[in-house]
Amino acid sequence: MRVVIVGAVAAGPKAACRIKRLLPEAEVVMVDKDDIISYGACGIPYFISGDVPILEELFSTNYHVVRDTDFFANSKGVKVLPQTEAIGIDRKKKEVFIKNLVTGKEEVLSYDKLVLATGSIPFIPPIPGINAQGVFSIVNLHDAQTVLDLIKRGEVERAVIIGGGAIGIEMAEALTDMWGVDVTIVEMMPHLLPGIIDTDISLMLKTHLEMHGVRLVCNAQVKEIKTDETGRVKEVIASSEALPADLVIVATGVRPNTKLAQEAGLLVSPQGIVVNQRMQTSDPDIYAGGDCVENRCLITGKGIFISSGSIANRHGRVIGTNIAGGLELFEGVVRSFVIKAFDLCIAKTGLCEEAAQKEGFEVIPVMIVQLDRAHFYPTKQLMYFQLTVEKNTQRVLGAQAVGINGDAVVGKINTVASMLKFKPTVDDLSILEIAYAPPFGTAVDILNTAGNVAKNTLAGKNRTISISEFLSLWQQRTSGEYIFLDVRETADAKPYVEKLAPYWINIPQREFRKRLAEVPTDKKIVIICNTGMRSYEIQLLLDKIGISQTFNLRGGMAALKMTGIDLVDSR
Amino acid sequence: MRVVIVGAVAAGPKAACRIKRLLPEAEVVMVDKDDIISYGACGIPYFISGDVPILEELFSTNYHVVRDTDFFANSKGVKVLPQTEAIGIDRKKKEVFIKNLVTGKEEVLSYDKLVLATGSIPFIPPIPGINAQGVFSIVNLHDAQTVLDLIKRGEVERAVIIGGGAIGIEMAEALTDMWGVDVTIVEMMPHLLPGIIDTDISLMLKTHLEMHGVRLVCNAQVKEIKTDETGRVKEVIASSEALPADLVIVATGVRPNTKLAQEAGLLVSPQGIVVNQRMQTSDPDIYAGGDCVENRCLITGKGIFISSGSIANRHGRVIGTNIAGGLELFEGVVRSFVIKAFDLCIAKTGLCEEAAQKEGFEVIPVMIVQLDRAHFYPTKQLMYFQLTVEKNTQRVLGAQAVGINGDAVVGKINTVASMLKFKPTVDDLSILEIAYAPPFGTAVDILNTAGNVAKNTLAGKNRTISISEFLSLWQQRTSGEYIFLDVRETADAKPYVEKLAPYWINIPQREFRKRLAEVPTDKKIVIICNTGMRSYEIQLLLDKIGISQTFNLRGGMAALKMTGIDLVDSR
Repeated sequence: MRVVIVGAVAAGPKAACRIKRLLPEAEVVMVDKDDIISYGACGIPYFISGDVPILEELFSTNYHVVRDTDFFANSKGVKVLPQTEAIGIDRKKKEVFIKNLVTGKEEVLSYDKLVLATGSIPFIPPIPGINAQGVFSIVNLHDAQTVLDLIKRGEVERAVIIGGGAIGIEMAEALTDMWGVDVTIVEMMPHLLPGIIDTDISLMLKTHLEMHGVRLVCNAQVKEIKTDETGRVKEVIASSEALPADLVIVATGVRPNTKLAQEAGLLVSPQGIVVNQRMQTSDPDIYAGGDCVENRCLITGKGIFISSGSIANRHGRVIGTNIAGGLELFEGVVRSFVIKAFDLCIAKTGLCEEAAQKEGFEVIPVMIVQLDRAHFYPTKQLMYFQLTVEKNTQRVLGAQAVGINGDAVVGKINTVASMLKFKPTVDDLSILEIAYAPPFGTAVDILNTAGNVAKNTLAGKNRTISISEFLSLWQQRTSGEYIFLDVRETADAKPYVEKLAPYWINIPQREFRKRLAEVPTDKKIVIICNTGMRSYEIQLLLDKIGISQTFNLRGGMAALKMTGIDLVDSR
Repeated sequence: MRVVIVGAVAAGPKAACRIKRLLPEAEVVMVDKDDIISYGACGIPYFISGDVPILEELFSTNYHVVRDTDFFANSKGVKVLPQTEAIGIDRKKKEVFIKNLVTGKEEVLSYDKLVLATGSIPFIPPIPGINAQGVFSIVNLHDAQTVLDLIKRGEVERAVIIGGGAIGIEMAEALTDMWGVDVTIVEMMPHLLPGIIDTDISLMLKTHLEMHGVRLVCNAQVKEIKTDETGRVKEVIASSEALPADLVIVATGVRPNTKLAQEAGLLVSPQGIVVNQRMQTSDPDIYAGGDCVENRCLITGKGIFISSGSIANRHGRVIGTNIAGGLELFEGVVRSFVIKAFDLCIAKTGLCEEAAQKEGFEVIPVMIVQLDRAHFYPTKQLMYFQLTVEKNTQRVLGAQAVGINGDAVVGKINTVASMLKFKPTVDDLSILEIAYAPPFGTAVDILNTAGNVAKNTLAGKNRTISISEFLSLWQQRTSGEYIFLDVRETADAKPYVEKLAPYWINIPQREFRKRLAEVPTDKKIVIICNTGMRSYEIQLLLDKIGISQTFNLRGGMAALKMTGIDLVDSR
């Protein structure tokens, strides 16, 4: 049995090694265009930032052995042909045509089973000047090394990153934090990580990036990259603004690399090579995995494109098992995501509100702000959590979280992620049994609270507004239609009442039952506390006395502050 | 509508507040024997350790308001009768008899709905001297304050803790870390946290505690507590050993407090008051929640006792909703657990191997050691993870994890916990989509690896031994029946080969294919690498050439080291 694998980054090597473990007698040949193989492209920003001091670490094992062709030959029994391109497939004869990119020599490899792990290719927007010197789309380790060399030679003072997705943000941190480069991110959509997280959460991320000196230009299209007389990048024209730059990183996403599959006549969709749950293409002797395949979204049931080394690895194992005669299925993806941005961790799983609405779901938005440890435990931090819930079915479609304590943030998201394929409802979250001890959580976990708040919202009891809705009401404050009722303790509310009267009034929740008479009855009321919990209780009390034109600010002052909004300019 | 609630610690207050939110017109009266109410008993060790500087923080809100009778009256509209005992129930008349513990005055409260949240009572073993001065079972904040006062007055130099459960361990840390008290834990069972975690994991915990100066005496029964002439504790006789002590903490567990329910003729099992999923007792007008009720284990389907403030809170909300006319169900528990012990976090969910076997499951044991972040990311730490898998069904019954990076450890456990009620198999773990970025995880997550290793073990491909089994084989090394084959890189294996030859040989995995001839064919082979992954690959290679009497050490040298075993005494 001979298996040929095209692509040796993530899915390819994983499949290769699995096959050799299960079927040691199989001959496994892996070809790759590059000379560096089996690497973690996800580590590039950490190489640029200096966290990873040597490039080799990105293609070494845990025990510091370089994963090169020798390693695959000796440790794994897998033959690797580096700097070799697969240029065609004859499916009838079961042959792959390959070309050595150094010698130009072409060869034919026959196969019993073929694996396509051709990955993705960067989408390069058709901008004038995009090929100028100093413009990079960082997709492999060679680019990474080149950019780092430029920086180390002191040639980079100002960088523009085109694209506010994960790579753009990670690169912004790397360039700013370690090297003091002046970084501007240009994003075409209204906010960062569009389609991944929602507006309120993305505002928190934006504020944090700005706090660390990164400039953001959203809603902006890059029209041109201008160069100096030597052909080197000089500035980026984003909408009407000229941004000086001596380095431009193009991080506008990647597309599945399906050329080889397409030319071989395999079924291919715009999202990638079409595979079944065994990861077989429309030709049962050809498997495919990694960035080049279409994935099934377990929330919507639709085929989607995903670029992820982690998912590629899972694909690889499934392919390996099935080629070796076993049976293993890859059911689909729930689109989990996490990113570090300076001190902040942003994570999500499933669909954010915007993505769910785009898919036609009618959703209710839920935002919780809660401590990640017992309130009396010294290292506690606030966590900001958003849940996407389908209105009719009460089904949980996704979750997003932001916080300083990254492992705790991603832990909550993973806890939701693992349930998603079982189609959980808000009830499942409400009684979810999170392990509890004061140093690691709260007796009522943020996930329980999210379920509870969702239930209260679905029942029409908790009627909330988002931060942007709050701001729009605040701007109308002089109209007299709305009053802003702060139900925090007097000491907390005082600076607001002092500066923002008569629009801002304070009746602490603790005294509310006694002071009901003070509540204005001629105005709509925006209720505010620190996290949105006490304000909910007040909303219920007001309902009881017939005052029902009330709006609870989701996440309260804590969420507002986290988005950088300071109504009293307390700096 | 009048609701009477007996018990004002966790389930009681939660139910009370929920009822008042949903049904503001209801009259809610809560009685409690104590004058301190609505507190987090789980915080006691952190009060003793000084992490929580003021006792009030344990019964304050997140926004630092003390949860006393005034707070419940004004903030929540709930009437609290402190220092009041419920001494009987007339179910026909729907009346509760109460007694003021200060004045001795008795009264009758009529109810429409009654909630029993009577909690648990410490189990005090019948040991001679158990009532001596200086012996405490820390169940409420008064005990906590008394013990802290003793310590602060310098009266405690040596403490004995009876019971190696959660409270015992947390108290050991508190006393040692902050106060330099000489602590010995006496545990009746063979290891710490019996029934919660398995031997190998508990050995890691033991080693860590000893590293921090805590002494452990397992397999030992306390026979007597001896006092000096003033009646003050002097020493604890544990099996044949006399342990000097000027403080004894009895942490031998708690039992459900079901007296009131039992006397009222409600259905009560040894595990607690029997309730349905709505948390109704056998009398539909009487609800019960918290430590006093029997919980349904979602793994075994059996009724069990659980003491947990976190679960009590979830019970409380369900009770509140149902009494207020809604419908909410509490399905059962998966027995999630987490504890901090100095720098270590130990967490579990579901059943450990020992507990599963006791329940009649035939299980396979799986232990993984893996980094919690990308191997190239600076802050990475090893995590030690054990999975309990039912052999016939491949069902995941539980998981345990230990590590330094506590939030990451508990995050993994919670991720498994949330799946457990859906009866996941090892396949569900194998392809589980954990959010991945280098600062927060590995491309193949430890949960994926656990699923994969379980599958390899179920397939008979990965044949492993535990640490204790390894040690027993090591003790027989001179018999010549076994050889210990170290497949790590030469530099790592060298000290072992030098000191432990001829029993210990080294053929690095990387060179193995070329050096197959060196493998002894006349002995059974124990294969060892750093974490158990490379040794698995070698096991497969040896299978291929007909050498199948091989045993892979689960978790490898990393697990061995974590349990404090040092074969070459490298200190």
